[in-house]
Amino acid sequence: MIEVIEAARDRKPLPAEKIREFVQAVVGGRVPDYQIAAWLMAVYLNGLDEASVFALTAAMADEGTTPPRMRGRVDKHSTGGVGDKTTLILAPLVSSLGIPLLKMSGRGLGHTGGTLDKLEAIPGFRVTLDDQELARQMDEIGVAVVAQSAWLAPCDGIFYALRDVTGTVDSLPLIASSIMSKKMAGGAPNLVLDVKVGSGALMKDHTRARQLAELMLRIGASRGIRVTALLTNMDQPLGQAVGNAVEVMEALACLSGQGPEDLREEVLTLASHMVSLAQMVAPDEARLRVEKALDGGQALEQWQRWVRAQGGDWLAAERGLPLASSVPVTLGRRGVVAQIDTEAIGRAAQWLGAGRQRKDDRIDPSVGIRWYARLGQSVEADEPVCEVLAPPGIRRDQAMEMLRQAVAFGSPRARSQAVLDIVSHA
Amino acid sequence: MIEVIEAARDRKPLPAEKIREFVQAVVGGRVPDYQIAAWLMAVYLNGLDEASVFALTAAMADEGTTPPRMRGRVDKHSTGGVGDKTTLILAPLVSSLGIPLLKMSGRGLGHTGGTLDKLEAIPGFRVTLDDQELARQMDEIGVAVVAQSAWLAPCDGIFYALRDVTGTVDSLPLIASSIMSKKMAGGAPNLVLDVKVGSGALMKDHTRARQLAELMLRIGASRGIRVTALLTNMDQPLGQAVGNAVEVMEALACLSGQGPEDLREEVLTLASHMVSLAQMVAPDEARLRVEKALDGGQALEQWQRWVRAQGGDWLAAERGLPLASSVPVTLGRRGVVAQIDTEAIGRAAQWLGAGRQRKDDRIDPSVGIRWYARLGQSVEADEPVCEVLAPPGIRRDQAMEMLRQAVAFGSPRARSQAVLDIVSHA
Repeated sequence: MIEVIEAARDRKPLPAEKIREFVQAVVGGRVPDYQIAAWLMAVYLNGLDEASVFALTAAMADEGTTPPRMRGRVDKHSTGGVGDKTTLILAPLVSSLGIPLLKMSGRGLGHTGGTLDKLEAIPGFRVTLDDQELARQMDEIGVAVVAQSAWLAPCDGIFYALRDVTGTVDSLPLIASSIMSKKMAGGAPNLVLDVKVGSGALMKDHTRARQLAELMLRIGASRGIRVTALLTNMDQPLGQAVGNAVEVMEALACLSGQGPEDLREEVLTLASHMVSLAQMVAPDEARLRVEKALDGGQALEQWQRWVRAQGGDWLAAERGLPLASSVPVTLGRRGVVAQIDTEAIGRAAQWLGAGRQRKDDRIDPSVGIRWYARLGQSVEADEPVCEVLAPPGIRRDQAMEMLRQAVAFGSPRARSQAVLDIVSHA
Repeated sequence: MIEVIEAARDRKPLPAEKIREFVQAVVGGRVPDYQIAAWLMAVYLNGLDEASVFALTAAMADEGTTPPRMRGRVDKHSTGGVGDKTTLILAPLVSSLGIPLLKMSGRGLGHTGGTLDKLEAIPGFRVTLDDQELARQMDEIGVAVVAQSAWLAPCDGIFYALRDVTGTVDSLPLIASSIMSKKMAGGAPNLVLDVKVGSGALMKDHTRARQLAELMLRIGASRGIRVTALLTNMDQPLGQAVGNAVEVMEALACLSGQGPEDLREEVLTLASHMVSLAQMVAPDEARLRVEKALDGGQALEQWQRWVRAQGGDWLAAERGLPLASSVPVTLGRRGVVAQIDTEAIGRAAQWLGAGRQRKDDRIDPSVGIRWYARLGQSVEADEPVCEVLAPPGIRRDQAMEMLRQAVAFGSPRARSQAVLDIVSHA
């Protein structure tokens, strides 16, 4: 395997076959961690030529691919943000238009929440289905959101665990191949990527986010997957709710034609592009279909079917999930919101117990934040910038202080619209 | 330890204390291999700022330092070449002038021979002495050449094992800190470095070899060690003998005032600089002392004492160690020797059994090569370029073919003198 390391080290392209052998050896446990780590650092520092990225991603995907019966027609992926509950809305919304959608999701990671954790705030909701259950559910209602199987693109799990402890997370070819290998393995022929940009995202910088989006588009094209990427705003939380039960409630509001405007706009845009790809209609036409499904109640009916199918108590959600007691956070001075440290908001929620500090921490679904202050908004001294949902105590006090620090007054520089840019083929 | 990896990755200097903690954690087994490997690759690709190299080397040395009673007054190190038997001559020669010399040596590595393997060609010679034996021998005869103890700069052993399998061997800061940490740990206040340059050396390029030499001089200076570095020629083997017993015989010839001229010249230059540093006299004055010791027989007497002290049968060596049968290698065409692939000569000797293909291979001390063709020399079609010492068989045939391929005729470009350059402080 030294050959693969040396090629990355010396910026020399390798034949696709060599890269495939490397990936197979990694998955087969025949490459020691230290060799993988040296390779990851070489790729981090030198980048990787595009042919090698394509070959790497394809090989990673091929090592663990979803059986045909369990594939959706369109898939969606978010690079992770704060308050990002779009999957909870998109899954029933898009599938209510007759487009099969199977989404493999993850747990919360660092300051960003996880779709599975949010869904588990609904009593009884099961995120792990066996293959038969999953296939049956897809046949019957055409939608499922489940935990990623261990067999799905297993190479990525091995790489990711090492990237996390070797300082090699933030690398475009490694991020792109990680995401795209899982999406390829998932088997949907159409994909909408939600690339988050801003203070709460892995990508803080618009240019780099665009580079990532374009690279993923080209990776998709190399395997015949049609991809549209949205660059969406993470300079403030998406919507107001940050947490688990509180995000489910907000998603449900959106599915009922209510909820925050930025969330609705982002959902409509994402859904339009998913439908556009899946039904091969123009995005404007797709948007009309999507708005109708959302405002006409079909999406909400599909939500009920879907939650019920996965064992969730949809009526409990409808009646309102239990939330911890609420306390407003004020700054004691007035000003115009110029900057929001969105990552700090995510960390505050994590600190309250909405996310994990360690892998085996338990999530408290009832805690979270309702964030009110928007970029450019004037805030009075006694006007809450947010509410904290948490039992009283030192943790809540600390989280409140983190949240106070997260707002800077001045002249807003960051853009406030939800969808910043759309990148697509052609 | 992620902080140390990220600093190397981002070319950010670290405080010496952090580097020391890292080295201590490595030696203590508290840093997983994959993190060390990622750090090694980052250093390989980004280099390392000089303050960090100094701190790293010092910390590596301090983790395992020779007890004061076992220290020599001068030490010598070669970066490894083909036919390099200088230690066998320098140890008795320099110590015969009353300068205590304790040399920790290694086994053969790849195509380069190892001093320990050569010494073991002498029947009975013991390269492992316990601390008491070693201290007594130093007191009594002032010279010893032994295997490097496991406790000497153990961090280097850990790094080296990983560098070998992660493509990170050829890095100036890693090479320099590896060599200098062991020399610092050895505790001698004076050091002569023999940096090999050319087709048989790790450093093929003069400029890079000089950079390595200068870096090691500055590392030495950072700890008050006086260092002189010689850049010596590895575009052809040093002397004629390549192997184990055959090199011992050539070393003995040199100690008797005979043997190849290039070997004698290199030995005299190395010894002069060792004596110059140790006795604080000018190199010219030192050279007179050294020549006298070599030609006057004191060095040979000291050789006998030394070999006897370490259990070796010096008389057997004097009478001639057993060598495999000899066969000449001719090229069947005439020409002027323009280039010699010296590494191939080393590999041929290794292939014959003078070195190891695998860690646990046994060395055959009787096999080897006598290399005759020198750069710039006219060779007749039936004139041997070398003799192979080996039993008949397929291996010998293969080695002979490797050796034929190692010579190129034409106009010589490489320099032929033994000592190319001398680098010293001030």
